[in-house]
Amino acid sequence: MNKNTVNIVEVCPRDGFQNLENFIPTSKKLEIIEGLIAAGFKKIQTTSFVHPKAVPQMRDAAEIAETVIPKYPEVTFTALVPNLHGAEAAYKAGIREISYVISASESHNRENVRRTIAESFEALADIRKRFADLIIKIDIATAFGCPFEGDVPVEKVCEMIDKAIEIGVDDIYLADTIGVANPAQMGNVLDVVAAKYPSVAFGLHLHDTRGMGLANVVVALQKGFDTFESAAGGLGGCPFAPGAAGNIATEDLVNMLEQMGYETGIALEQLLKTVDVIKADVKSDLTGHLANICRQ
Amino acid sequence: MNKNTVNIVEVCPRDGFQNLENFIPTSKKLEIIEGLIAAGFKKIQTTSFVHPKAVPQMRDAAEIAETVIPKYPEVTFTALVPNLHGAEAAYKAGIREISYVISASESHNRENVRRTIAESFEALADIRKRFADLIIKIDIATAFGCPFEGDVPVEKVCEMIDKAIEIGVDDIYLADTIGVANPAQMGNVLDVVAAKYPSVAFGLHLHDTRGMGLANVVVALQKGFDTFESAAGGLGGCPFAPGAAGNIATEDLVNMLEQMGYETGIALEQLLKTVDVIKADVKSDLTGHLANICRQ
Repeated sequence: MNKNTVNIVEVCPRDGFQNLENFIPTSKKLEIIEGLIAAGFKKIQTTSFVHPKAVPQMRDAAEIAETVIPKYPEVTFTALVPNLHGAEAAYKAGIREISYVISASESHNRENVRRTIAESFEALADIRKRFADLIIKIDIATAFGCPFEGDVPVEKVCEMIDKAIEIGVDDIYLADTIGVANPAQMGNVLDVVAAKYPSVAFGLHLHDTRGMGLANVVVALQKGFDTFESAAGGLGGCPFAPGAAGNIATEDLVNMLEQMGYETGIALEQLLKTVDVIKADVKSDLTGHLANICRQ
Repeated sequence: MNKNTVNIVEVCPRDGFQNLENFIPTSKKLEIIEGLIAAGFKKIQTTSFVHPKAVPQMRDAAEIAETVIPKYPEVTFTALVPNLHGAEAAYKAGIREISYVISASESHNRENVRRTIAESFEALADIRKRFADLIIKIDIATAFGCPFEGDVPVEKVCEMIDKAIEIGVDDIYLADTIGVANPAQMGNVLDVVAAKYPSVAFGLHLHDTRGMGLANVVVALQKGFDTFESAAGGLGGCPFAPGAAGNIATEDLVNMLEQMGYETGIALEQLLKTVDVIKADVKSDLTGHLANICRQ
C-alpha cells in the first residue's frame, strides 16, 4: 500500500441511520449505498442484524445485504451484529465481515447491549468458534471516555485488546463513541497501543461531538494510523442530543485528507451528491461542514 | 509566560456580530461582552469603527467602547478600523488597540475594502504615523486561500509581513478568512514564517468552515504558536452561506485546549452561559459544537 493512502470505511448506512426514528424506505437506503459505491468506497458498513423490535430501522437488513452483495462483488459489505444469532443471520444473507461492539466501560456496555463485558466477550468467542470464514472486527467502544464513568484508563483498553486477540478477531478498532477524545489524549493512547501491539493495524472510529474529530484524525495520521470509519453527512451519534454532531463526516474527512496530499480513492464531488440526497430525503439538519457550504 | 498557556482573543462582538442582519440592541451586546469578561477574557475585539451605512450593526461602536473601557480597566478592548477616519473615531472613544485587515489576495482585498493592497498599506502607514500610542494589529486575510484566486503563495504572505513590519505594526495575525487551510498547509506556512521571522509572535485567526479549524489549531500548537482569535458560538463567516460554520467556536477551542492540558484562563462553564445567551437572543442556529450538546 502506498504510504500516503488512507482507508475510509463508510458507516452511514448502519451507524448513521440506526438512530433515526422514521423508517427510511429500503429503496432509498439502496440508492444511498449505491451512491457511496459510485463515489469509490470499497468497504461499507451496510446494516445491522439486530432484533427488529430493538432497532426497527434495521429490519430490512437481509434484503439490503442480499441485494447489494451479489451486485457489487468488488465491495466489502459489513454488518453490525450483537450476538451469535445476528452473526448467523448476517452470514446467511451473504455477509462475510462483521462488526461487534464491546465497550471498555462496564456501565456503557450494559447500557448499550445489556450485558457485562465478560458476557460480551463470551458471545464474541462463540461467533469466532462458529464461523472460521467470517472476518470479525471488534469495536472497542468508549475507548477514550465514557458518558457514565468518565475517563477510561488505557490499561483497560489494552485488556480489551488482549482479550480480543486471544479470541482471534481479525480487526480491532478503537472507538471514541461520544466524541470526547482530545488530540493530546489521542496521541498518548495511540502511542501506547502502537508500542504494545506493533503487529496490529488498528482502525479508528471517531465522532465529532465536540469539534475535535478531524484534529484527532491529524494526530492519528502523525502516529502512522491510516484507517478510519466515518459517516456521510456526519450522521450518527447520540439520539438524545439532536443538534450535536455525530460521526466525523466522511466528506469533511475526504476533503481534508485529499487537501493534505493523501489518497483516499474517493471522488469528493460524487460523494457530495449522495450527501445531498441524505440531506434532502433522510435528515435535513446535517452537522457535517461541507454539507452546509454553498456549492456551485 | 507559562509554556502551556494559550492566549485566546474573543472576537464575537465584532467579527461574530458584524454580518448579522438584525440589529442587536446595544444593551444585549453589552450583556454579552460583560459575560465574556466574567468568563475571563483579557482581550476582546469589541466593535468596529466603520461607516454606519456600510455596517449598520456596528453603528453603536462609540457607545459600546465608551461604556466598557472605563468600567473594565483590566481588559483590552480592541476595535476593527478600515481607515484613518475609523482609527480617529476609535481613539476618541478610548480604544488603544486596533485591528486592520489587508487581504493577501488582490481581488479579495478589493471586494472587502474596495482598495488595492498598496492603497490599504498606505492607509495603514497613515494610521501608524498619526498614532504613536495605538497598538496596531494587522490581519493578513486570505493568507491560506482566497475565494476568488484560490491558492495564495506563502511568498505573497511574506511580502505582506515585510511590508507590515516596515510600517511598524505591533502585531501580525494570519487569517484563514474562508476556512480553507488544511493542517498540512498550516504546518508548512507556519514553518516558513517562523523560520523567516523568529522575533515575530504571530497570532492566528482561523475559521471552521470545512471542519478543519481545531485540527489547524493543533498543528499550530505543535509548531509553537500560542495565540488564537475565535468567536463564542462559532459566529462569523460568510453571510452568503447561512448554515456554514464561521470562526472557530471559542467554547470548542477552550474545551479542547483545557482537555489537552493547556491553560487558557477561561472558565468554560461561565463562557457557555454567554453562548446560551447568544443562542437564545442573537442566533439560534449556532455552528459551534458544544453549543449543541445537551448539557446538565
